[in-house]
Amino acid sequence: MWLRNCWYVIAWDHEIPALDAPTLFRRTVLGEPVLVYRTADGGYTALEDRCCHRHAPLSAGRREGDCVRCGYHGLLFNAAGTCVEVPGLAAVPPKARVRRYPLVLRNRWLFVWMGNPDGADPALLPDNFSCDHPDWRNKPGYMHYDTPYLLICDNLLDFSHLSYVHAATLGGSTEIAQAVPTIAPVPGTRADWPLMGIRVSRHVRNVPAPPFYQRFRRFDSHLDRWFVYDFLLPGTLLMHSGGKPVNDAENDLQNAVQLHSCQTLTPETQNSTHYFFQQSHRADAGDSTVTDSIFNSLVQAFNEDRDMISAQHHNLALAGGQPMLPLAMDAALLQFRRLLQAQLDRERESMAP
Amino acid sequence: MWLRNCWYVIAWDHEIPALDAPTLFRRTVLGEPVLVYRTADGGYTALEDRCCHRHAPLSAGRREGDCVRCGYHGLLFNAAGTCVEVPGLAAVPPKARVRRYPLVLRNRWLFVWMGNPDGADPALLPDNFSCDHPDWRNKPGYMHYDTPYLLICDNLLDFSHLSYVHAATLGGSTEIAQAVPTIAPVPGTRADWPLMGIRVSRHVRNVPAPPFYQRFRRFDSHLDRWFVYDFLLPGTLLMHSGGKPVNDAENDLQNAVQLHSCQTLTPETQNSTHYFFQQSHRADAGDSTVTDSIFNSLVQAFNEDRDMISAQHHNLALAGGQPMLPLAMDAALLQFRRLLQAQLDRERESMAP
Amino acid sequence: MWLRNCWYVIAWDHEIPALDAPTLFRRTVLGEPVLVYRTADGGYTALEDRCCHRHAPLSAGRREGDCVRCGYHGLLFNAAGTCVEVPGLAAVPPKARVRRYPLVLRNRWLFVWMGNPDGADPALLPDNFSCDHPDWRNKPGYMHYDTPYLLICDNLLDFSHLSYVHAATLGGSTEIAQAVPTIAPVPGTRADWPLMGIRVSRHVRNVPAPPFYQRFRRFDSHLDRWFVYDFLLPGTLLMHSGGKPVNDAENDLQNAVQLHSCQTLTPETQNSTHYFFQQSHRADAGDSTVTDSIFNSLVQAFNEDRDMISAQHHNLALAGGQPMLPLAMDAALLQFRRLLQAQLDRERESMAP
Repeated sequence: MWLRNCWYVIAWDHEIPALDAPTLFRRTVLGEPVLVYRTADGGYTALEDRCCHRHAPLSAGRREGDCVRCGYHGLLFNAAGTCVEVPGLAAVPPKARVRRYPLVLRNRWLFVWMGNPDGADPALLPDNFSCDHPDWRNKPGYMHYDTPYLLICDNLLDFSHLSYVHAATLGGSTEIAQAVPTIAPVPGTRADWPLMGIRVSRHVRNVPAPPFYQRFRRFDSHLDRWFVYDFLLPGTLLMHSGGKPVNDAENDLQNAVQLHSCQTLTPETQNSTHYFFQQSHRADAGDSTVTDSIFNSLVQAFNEDRDMISAQHHNLALAGGQPMLPLAMDAALLQFRRLLQAQLDRERESMAP
Repeated sequence: MWLRNCWYVIAWDHEIPALDAPTLFRRTVLGEPVLVYRTADGGYTALEDRCCHRHAPLSAGRREGDCVRCGYHGLLFNAAGTCVEVPGLAAVPPKARVRRYPLVLRNRWLFVWMGNPDGADPALLPDNFSCDHPDWRNKPGYMHYDTPYLLICDNLLDFSHLSYVHAATLGGSTEIAQAVPTIAPVPGTRADWPLMGIRVSRHVRNVPAPPFYQRFRRFDSHLDRWFVYDFLLPGTLLMHSGGKPVNDAENDLQNAVQLHSCQTLTPETQNSTHYFFQQSHRADAGDSTVTDSIFNSLVQAFNEDRDMISAQHHNLALAGGQPMLPLAMDAALLQFRRLLQAQLDRERESMAP
Repeated sequence: MWLRNCWYVIAWDHEIPALDAPTLFRRTVLGEPVLVYRTADGGYTALEDRCCHRHAPLSAGRREGDCVRCGYHGLLFNAAGTCVEVPGLAAVPPKARVRRYPLVLRNRWLFVWMGNPDGADPALLPDNFSCDHPDWRNKPGYMHYDTPYLLICDNLLDFSHLSYVHAATLGGSTEIAQAVPTIAPVPGTRADWPLMGIRVSRHVRNVPAPPFYQRFRRFDSHLDRWFVYDFLLPGTLLMHSGGKPVNDAENDLQNAVQLHSCQTLTPETQNSTHYFFQQSHRADAGDSTVTDSIFNSLVQAFNEDRDMISAQHHNLALAGGQPMLPLAMDAALLQFRRLLQAQLDRERESMAP
């Protein structure tokens, strides 16, 4: 059901408490509780948040240096997940350990690998450069969904919804839904990852600036808008988008809005999802009021999505109903679901004896 | 489990927003989400509240004339449920439609037919005349239950509970429980509906006026009271009830209280139910203060019922317990459950190939 | 899953309303709803809280002398659970009765027997003497858990958790976890109860007075502490504990703190539990401020337990995870679980035809 041999974002780096903070960070990923904490060398570690003894969460315990002590019966684990002390026992049983997950920090996102640790290849990380780049400015966002993650992937793979769900924020014209995107595969670089995802490109000519642009700048003419994004397995969107005055030359971006967005979905449980996102503007195009404005619009828009997807999910839980009716606008989401299934099959085969 | 080829009340007419209101009305019936809205010709339409495309609720969209546009990807449906526009597509696929349910307005109740539309015969509607009749006055009521609808049918089919559940409202004396009602079948007029329900008649002699009478009038003597009602499939009660001073002649209703009540149950899900009700008094017997008094007493009494039935339902969900013990007072409710089962069997046979 | 042929505490005596109170007391035990009320002779009765007719709770009705009348259709039951009146019926059907459970009051705890009434032997009651003894003072406590009762038994059978969960209340030093308890069986006196439970004894030398001692008295030296308790089937802890200054002679208890605690667990449902408790001090060792202080510390500590066990329970409900890893400190809880299983097997065999 879920890919395991891949990277999922578990947190923004700033979500993890400081070395001297009294609390520990826990987040459930693919149904498994995970503890993440900082280590003295400036790094991070991710452990199963479940003591091997009686399954109490280690996050209810406390840090001792780079170790964490269970708050129930006092077992002490090091940052590799090995138990190094059992109160009352002279020798620690060799089986006393908790799982450690490969963890990588890349551009402020902490990625965790939930599958076979041997395969944890940083080459499979998505290029979320704008999360942390001197040329780009953003505010980081996080949102929790009580719906399955694939319904949110569907949403991100069909921007025709911008015209309707986001009429007052990201959209602003029905032409977005009218435009036909081009769809292309994103090739992988490893034999077991022939495809990383799909690329969706949508161009809309001569439309009003969307409401969220108008909140941070005044426009005297219509715009040509573009949305070009990779949507990568298991669920990451990397997008260049923008708009420029219709009468400006094709390569004149002087008066254009240029944005880059990184968004990613991490399944929490079958029916809940973590959503990490940011939308950056060029550092030379606006100050922090622009950054704030874009962030606030994005949060407003993503609440619009969540309302709609939650209502859809509620409907799906009700009895009856015909199967969904595939339409042309579903091309990208259907391709993505096929891609996911193919990679799931590949993963299952690789684990067969 | 539920009859489908029959009429269920989905709403009072006043619950449906006006033509120019910004909201849409949704209610779940037999586990299916239904959208009801007014049309320009003064009528109403009932559509499956689930877009055929990705199953988003149409009620989260907006009206455009007599059409409704899905708020997710913009499909537009007319009042017959046919999709008339798919943004970005020149031609609408023929399969793009949502189910339309037969809908009839009769005396302020909107009835929906959840089964085979070919059988939607208005002759099967119950005669809820007092909901909208110049000789009768009432206030309309609606209540939601978190219990199965049959437990509420049971309640309405055995008025012995008036002596105990409603001692302070509709009852007022233990003689109601002591009285033995007569029970008779209500014949149907169609071959496939041999019986419409059962008629229950209960007469109680020389008892104090019930508390809810005493709230709108003073009584100097005991009353003879009567309750005569049809309880019709799938779950509608139509009742004449009243009381007259014991010493008045049999046919002298000059000082009598005469009431007519229409109540109906519509399953929402397996464990929840819609309850529509009113109890009318004669228009020539009291002003709006009487109307209000009766309505307030009814709401109080129906809350007494809901508390009891919810407690019963909670007990039924607990483990163990003997089977229920049938007693003489259960005659009507057991007959009704048999009637329902017979009609369910008939419906199933009619749909067999 | 649960022993039935044994005593469970259903309430403290003061929880049962007075004879003339308008309310009735209901509590669910082993998934069954039970009604408890006082009788005119100063005793108590425990009946199935589910009318045999339509399964409404009798606790939603009212007392009439030593009888209880169902609030739905008026059936009247005496204190033995026999129906003595059905409104409208001249003769009560012989099957009209609800189950009566054996009930015993012993030292302020009301014990109910959920199994075969023939086996309800008071000799099987635990000796909860300090709940009501002139030499001991306490305040009675009750707490509700949303976790299975065995997880709480586990907690009470391994006091190594005092060093970590209760560092700020009952514990105060890691030596408690370091100490190795002695464990011994508690023999029974009946052939079908060869063992009643297990005795756990733990002694800790030369440690600081625990925080909760220090709240009611000042200590100038370290203490020797002891915890000696029987943990009896189905889930009762009876404990002598205390501490005395390290330099006092072995048999000099003049400056010692001496406590006796009775705690018992009663399953409500598969995932919820009733917890009754008190911890007494010697009546000649402190006034009501000491009693209050100990009670408040106990409630604080038991909230610490509940937080931890609830978090453990939540983790157990998540997917995956290795089996628990048994450690030396689990000796008592593993023995108790084996004891429970053996007694469950014995009970099942005794009921076989």
